[in-house]
Amino acid sequence: MAKRKPTQYVYAFGNQTDGGAELRNTLGGKGANLAEMARIGLPVPPGFTLVTDVCNYYYDNDRQYPPSLEGDVAKAMRAIENQLDKRFGDPVNPLLLSVRSGARESMPGMMDTILNLGLNDETVEGLAEATANPRFAYDCYRRFIHMYADVVMGVNDENADPFEHVLEAKKRAEGVELDSDLSAEGLAAVIDEFKSIVRNHTGEDFPQDVGAQLWGAIGAVFGSWLNDRAVLYRQRYGIPRSWGTAVNVQAMVFGNLGETSGTGVAFTRDPATGEKVLYGEYLVNAQGEDVVAGVRTPNPIAQMVDDLPKSHAELEKVRTKLERHFRDMQDFEFTVENGKLFMLQTRNGKRTGLAAVRIAVEMNRERLIDRKTALMKIPAESIDSLLVPVFDHKAVAGATPIATGLPAGPGAASGEIAFTSDRAEELTRKGKSVVLCRTETSPDDLKGMLNSAGILTSRGGVSSHAALVARQLGKVCVCGAASVVINYDDGTLNAGDAVLKEGDWISIDGSTGEIFAGPIETTASEVQRVLRGRLKPEKSYHYQLYATVMSWSDALRRVKIRTNADTPSMAKQAIEYGAESIGLCRTEHMFFEETRIDHMREMILAPDETARRAALKKLLPYQRRDFKGLFQAMGGKPVTIRLLDPPLHEFLPHDDGVSAALAEKLGVPVADVLERTESLAEVNPMLGCRGCRLGIMYPEITEMQARAIFEAAIAASSGKNAVVVLPEIMVPLVGFVAELEDQVAIVRRVADEVMSKKGVTIEYQVGTMIEVPRAAITADEIAEVAEFFSFGTNDLTQMTLGLSRDDMGSFYDQYVAKEIYGANPFASIDESGVGRLVSHAARLGRSTRQGIKLGICGEHGGDPSSIRFCQETDLDYVSCSPPRVPVARLAAAQAAISLG
Amino acid sequence: MAKRKPTQYVYAFGNQTDGGAELRNTLGGKGANLAEMARIGLPVPPGFTLVTDVCNYYYDNDRQYPPSLEGDVAKAMRAIENQLDKRFGDPVNPLLLSVRSGARESMPGMMDTILNLGLNDETVEGLAEATANPRFAYDCYRRFIHMYADVVMGVNDENADPFEHVLEAKKRAEGVELDSDLSAEGLAAVIDEFKSIVRNHTGEDFPQDVGAQLWGAIGAVFGSWLNDRAVLYRQRYGIPRSWGTAVNVQAMVFGNLGETSGTGVAFTRDPATGEKVLYGEYLVNAQGEDVVAGVRTPNPIAQMVDDLPKSHAELEKVRTKLERHFRDMQDFEFTVENGKLFMLQTRNGKRTGLAAVRIAVEMNRERLIDRKTALMKIPAESIDSLLVPVFDHKAVAGATPIATGLPAGPGAASGEIAFTSDRAEELTRKGKSVVLCRTETSPDDLKGMLNSAGILTSRGGVSSHAALVARQLGKVCVCGAASVVINYDDGTLNAGDAVLKEGDWISIDGSTGEIFAGPIETTASEVQRVLRGRLKPEKSYHYQLYATVMSWSDALRRVKIRTNADTPSMAKQAIEYGAESIGLCRTEHMFFEETRIDHMREMILAPDETARRAALKKLLPYQRRDFKGLFQAMGGKPVTIRLLDPPLHEFLPHDDGVSAALAEKLGVPVADVLERTESLAEVNPMLGCRGCRLGIMYPEITEMQARAIFEAAIAASSGKNAVVVLPEIMVPLVGFVAELEDQVAIVRRVADEVMSKKGVTIEYQVGTMIEVPRAAITADEIAEVAEFFSFGTNDLTQMTLGLSRDDMGSFYDQYVAKEIYGANPFASIDESGVGRLVSHAARLGRSTRQGIKLGICGEHGGDPSSIRFCQETDLDYVSCSPPRVPVARLAAAQAAISLG
Repeated sequence: MAKRKPTQYVYAFGNQTDGGAELRNTLGGKGANLAEMARIGLPVPPGFTLVTDVCNYYYDNDRQYPPSLEGDVAKAMRAIENQLDKRFGDPVNPLLLSVRSGARESMPGMMDTILNLGLNDETVEGLAEATANPRFAYDCYRRFIHMYADVVMGVNDENADPFEHVLEAKKRAEGVELDSDLSAEGLAAVIDEFKSIVRNHTGEDFPQDVGAQLWGAIGAVFGSWLNDRAVLYRQRYGIPRSWGTAVNVQAMVFGNLGETSGTGVAFTRDPATGEKVLYGEYLVNAQGEDVVAGVRTPNPIAQMVDDLPKSHAELEKVRTKLERHFRDMQDFEFTVENGKLFMLQTRNGKRTGLAAVRIAVEMNRERLIDRKTALMKIPAESIDSLLVPVFDHKAVAGATPIATGLPAGPGAASGEIAFTSDRAEELTRKGKSVVLCRTETSPDDLKGMLNSAGILTSRGGVSSHAALVARQLGKVCVCGAASVVINYDDGTLNAGDAVLKEGDWISIDGSTGEIFAGPIETTASEVQRVLRGRLKPEKSYHYQLYATVMSWSDALRRVKIRTNADTPSMAKQAIEYGAESIGLCRTEHMFFEETRIDHMREMILAPDETARRAALKKLLPYQRRDFKGLFQAMGGKPVTIRLLDPPLHEFLPHDDGVSAALAEKLGVPVADVLERTESLAEVNPMLGCRGCRLGIMYPEITEMQARAIFEAAIAASSGKNAVVVLPEIMVPLVGFVAELEDQVAIVRRVADEVMSKKGVTIEYQVGTMIEVPRAAITADEIAEVAEFFSFGTNDLTQMTLGLSRDDMGSFYDQYVAKEIYGANPFASIDESGVGRLVSHAARLGRSTRQGIKLGICGEHGGDPSSIRFCQETDLDYVSCSPPRVPVARLAAAQAAISLG
Repeated sequence: MAKRKPTQYVYAFGNQTDGGAELRNTLGGKGANLAEMARIGLPVPPGFTLVTDVCNYYYDNDRQYPPSLEGDVAKAMRAIENQLDKRFGDPVNPLLLSVRSGARESMPGMMDTILNLGLNDETVEGLAEATANPRFAYDCYRRFIHMYADVVMGVNDENADPFEHVLEAKKRAEGVELDSDLSAEGLAAVIDEFKSIVRNHTGEDFPQDVGAQLWGAIGAVFGSWLNDRAVLYRQRYGIPRSWGTAVNVQAMVFGNLGETSGTGVAFTRDPATGEKVLYGEYLVNAQGEDVVAGVRTPNPIAQMVDDLPKSHAELEKVRTKLERHFRDMQDFEFTVENGKLFMLQTRNGKRTGLAAVRIAVEMNRERLIDRKTALMKIPAESIDSLLVPVFDHKAVAGATPIATGLPAGPGAASGEIAFTSDRAEELTRKGKSVVLCRTETSPDDLKGMLNSAGILTSRGGVSSHAALVARQLGKVCVCGAASVVINYDDGTLNAGDAVLKEGDWISIDGSTGEIFAGPIETTASEVQRVLRGRLKPEKSYHYQLYATVMSWSDALRRVKIRTNADTPSMAKQAIEYGAESIGLCRTEHMFFEETRIDHMREMILAPDETARRAALKKLLPYQRRDFKGLFQAMGGKPVTIRLLDPPLHEFLPHDDGVSAALAEKLGVPVADVLERTESLAEVNPMLGCRGCRLGIMYPEITEMQARAIFEAAIAASSGKNAVVVLPEIMVPLVGFVAELEDQVAIVRRVADEVMSKKGVTIEYQVGTMIEVPRAAITADEIAEVAEFFSFGTNDLTQMTLGLSRDDMGSFYDQYVAKEIYGANPFASIDESGVGRLVSHAARLGRSTRQGIKLGICGEHGGDPSSIRFCQETDLDYVSCSPPRVPVARLAAAQAAISLG
């Protein structure tokens, strides 16, 4: 493929601004928005951006830069120097820089920032003189050496930061508590020691050449694009490697020049609740890193009214300007230098699901955005946060919190304490509910966070790593619970009098910040209570938000939403959530209850057809009753019933004791039971005797199921509570049209028999699952018989990828690490493989039977990106589990909007 | 699809002939050739054919005939009556008819023939008077009732034929031995009893209305198209149901009018050896059925020179005329009625593989056919019969035959005796070699014949069912061994003094007819001995035939023939058979030998990468040596080496004792071995951690294999016996191009390392198996990295069909019976499913990489119909097991010829 030749590698911002928000792909998110803010007149320190194409060039050319780059950078540097009347590396009036990464999407896994670049043994003296503040200058220099040595030169130690060690010793020696209390002399000594550390670790001196510093920092940003955490993050969020990162070089401004300086992070609305207030935190006399690092706990932004009143008033205006301009909630960084406000970054703010919904709906009310835009701004999964359980009122009423932190991820979670990611993963694998408890979290904890129901930290604010990631993952989170002390060595968590150990239960409320010892029962959310008629709609603002989003979605979406439900109660829940019909009823789930399973086993163990028929006759009434219940629950809505699918051995006991009991119950020798069980064992059950193969081997099973369906349909559609019944009978695992013909013939014959006996006509359809690749390949032939297709993308994925979901665990982690799978193919449909097959089959099916009804069932049916694929392929419906229905409704609307 | 409206349902032959051989699809084989013989002036009794479209009409319209049919048949009947001056149903001068089925291909599973139709209580008297032979007339009538009642009215009993019972009783009563010795009165009484049997069995009288008889017989022929045996036969030979059968109605001629009459079956050349002599057998004073039924053992045709000299001379002329006209060996039926020869049928004769080869080559020498035609006349599998083992000379020299029969299927077989099909199948399933021993065989025995190495019958000639089917199946067969007495009740086989029981060993030589008690070792055939240099080519006519066919094939074929060989000895055998290179070397087969398996297990049980590398280092020298041997054996020919493929648990012991021994050998606790074994167990190993997934998990395995390959390549290509080495490294189970990229990077890195260390450059390619459906679907992406594709159609079939070969046994029989699979998809490629995918992938692959090398490996590579598919898809090569190479060479030539 020919690659577009970039015309410009360096874009300036400041007095003269080259780019803007529309160049996000080129400049990265940070660079584009810095340029945009400069354009709209917000106070941005001047700088320039190395574009993302430089990153690609760098990796495509063995880590070399484009030849013209050096000249372009020099030119851009001169523009900054001229604007500020400072010179980079000038011993008298030095220009200092920040160097930051900036990908198209914010990526916490990457190198973030180097501050104070341009300081060396000479320029630090110039800075001291220019600011008349040697303490400040030395503080900047020691910070710079520390950051640069860590990030660029790789001087770091996970367990014991050698720089911190020196700093702590010096603070002890001077008898002070805070870094900012150290004397200039102390800091000068620290600087010397820092330089020694660098020399000892790397064998080289800390670079005094400011040009070398700059290019070292730029190289570190590009290098971080391929570090492990960045790779893992891209994997999880489906960000292609080819996007690359940009690098932003910007003149420094200082929040640590004294009590009229400060720095902070703020949101234009509350990112947890969505409420329309300026929200955030700041520190006086500090640099940006101090706020996010969680070392000093920052002050809530409201307090600025007292500390820095003029800047606070300015911020309120900035807030309005930003929202008017970007038409989304913004998360921005600012610094106040000697009373003057500077904007260092703005971006669309991460938010909880609840906030996403509220902000979108309210921004529409405020006429900032239209309905379609509003819907597109709500990650479809967010709607879940209105439905997640909360603590049971009564249970929590009796409980006293052992501590309270910041509410950073809504919902309630109760689980066993894990202090490490590995432990969290281990417990989750055992089926336990887990709450990950950390002093603070880092990108290394991502795996643990994914494996936990909730996250608790004792340090860090609402913009800390823990809060940020929990919000994205939709996890319950309480952060910055200062009274909680976690001791990893002892494996204990102390809060007041409570001492909890790893494995003990803890409960956290991400909406209030409360922390409880022991398990607490969770209960339905406000929205759920309204849906179940236990709360009046007008009493719940959450419900109104939910209902608004759902009604907008339903008006805009084209894909129908069905549900996978096997029982009347599941069907009822799905209807509450807005399901339009049942897309998959797995009849085998009806066979597992106590008395039925015995009849089922009797059927399987039957020595011949006669005995099998006798056992089936006992199962018939159960199936009929279940189907009738389903039809009644879904009155008037179609119900797709899949014929028996799993291999028969799944129904047999796999325990000698149970086998013996079964043998006794059935009055057969236990050896017979064991022998039959063994004879049914398969090498690859996924590819064995299951699906329609069962019905072809034992037509009497299909007959019984068809009879149950039609007898139930007639019963449900007559009498006092008659409903319209629309059964759609689905034959599973078809690969050859002849298989379908065989089963369809049985179904139609039984239908005719039952209907003519009762003198009632039921409209019905017979179709098939498309889950064997051959069925997709020959969909034109299959559509000659099938009246509908339901793509069973779970099995279709397993077979198309040659990938057993049960067995992929052994190598899946490696595959994720090596970025072989774009996303988990069982979570999101593998568009370029399975997806191609689905579109192909859809085309073939329609070529034979115009307007054939097409849908998907299985887990992909509730996945937004898969739903988008379904809309793109023009499928008629998706079918998902009942709790996923609201997500699917919204995702379907988004797909319709974005595909036009 | 619009069906062609048939313009003519009934075609006459005789004085006026409507059709001919070119209308085979319409008239069926029998009808077309009767018409053709009539056309070229051979003496054919007049008649007519109901075309195959009537059969389709019949099944498409609920077993109704086209409305015009009755009138057409009446008209055709009048033509016969006028030609012969006889009337159907006329009590004085009755016309009698035969009614026979006749599909496009001869189908032994169907109803064959009803003779003497038109006889009833009145016409039998007319016949008696017209022939002045009441005994003959009654004999005809009793035969007709018997046949008609059995075939049309369903009066039959597998175990005890009630009609035979009456006949035997009458013969005892009259004190005669043969049916033909019964008196007219005796026969009249038999007829009465026969009619009673019909009445008792069916509740109806035997039909006296000759019209009803005719339509009954016609309906029975059409009905037999869907009987079980016909379905099974079509399944085995891939004959579509839609072809339908024709029905031939023809005036009777009588071979049973006395000593100047007779009937016989002959071949224009010997169907066992191919020798150019009139070959066959006949009976004086008999009807056709007597010859094939095996009840009376017929005389060899040469004897006709004495019995019916004029007819014999006529037959010699007919023989030449038939071959000149049909340009193929003919199998024909004739009847001599009072000295006058009539031809009742001709068709291309079934023949042994040897005969097929010999006839084709000799007919080309005789300028009857050109080379292409000659090759097309040899079923590709036939070439095998020149290669099949024969009895070891020494072993058989010491053995005395216990009996001798007719040599009816070449080769030697030794196995356990089975008297029934079920038993044969059971023994075969246990891995035993089986010889099926029957008094005579019927279509019901097909399953048993398929499951046996050899077939022995005590009755019936070389045209008996057993001989015919064995020849088609390529089975060793000795038939008509009259001194062998089989007693099903006792379960014994007596021959002279020998008494053998079921399960005892027996050995038969299908080329000599000899039968031996006990097992006899088999040995290489003449051709094999020449190939191995143990016999001079000029000493073996068989070898000359073989070499002729192979050289013609090689000149015409376009598909290259590679072989699947894992060892130098397999490679050597394949080269003898004409393989051009190795298409698949399965490296894992090198790991199973004694010392290696321990290192392999050590590698698998290694707790970490270091230990794994240590174990791999021990395996390296073995692999290197094996590869070097292969490269040397294939000097100058490419060798495709597949990287490790099977799941690791396949290498571990599955027995506690062996596990304990292994643990001791490796010096680890047995619990570790058991735990690792258990942790490697998979639910669906086919879709688990295998193929390239292993190399991605453990890159050091791929490294070791690549190192072994390149070190071996360098060693083999240098020094005294240097050969050109062309390694092609193949990555298995690729589904995502990223998997291939990962493995290719390792291979290329190691290649560079090894080559630069040794200072030698080896040309090599890296490609992939296309065996996961996703790989086929994304072949365009994969071809960006792969330099060749080898379609692994075994696994591709398993995954595309969702069908585990190991588990299909439980339902496969039902699938065959219900005609769901056109053919076993693991024997012949499923063209409309897997085949579509392969062509699609070939197209995609070529779209990315023009001229990419494409082939298939796996069992389909040696299957003629799959080879044809490969030619059609324009693949470069097929790769098959060494013994299949000659078949593949011929099949490839046939594909090239037929596809033009």
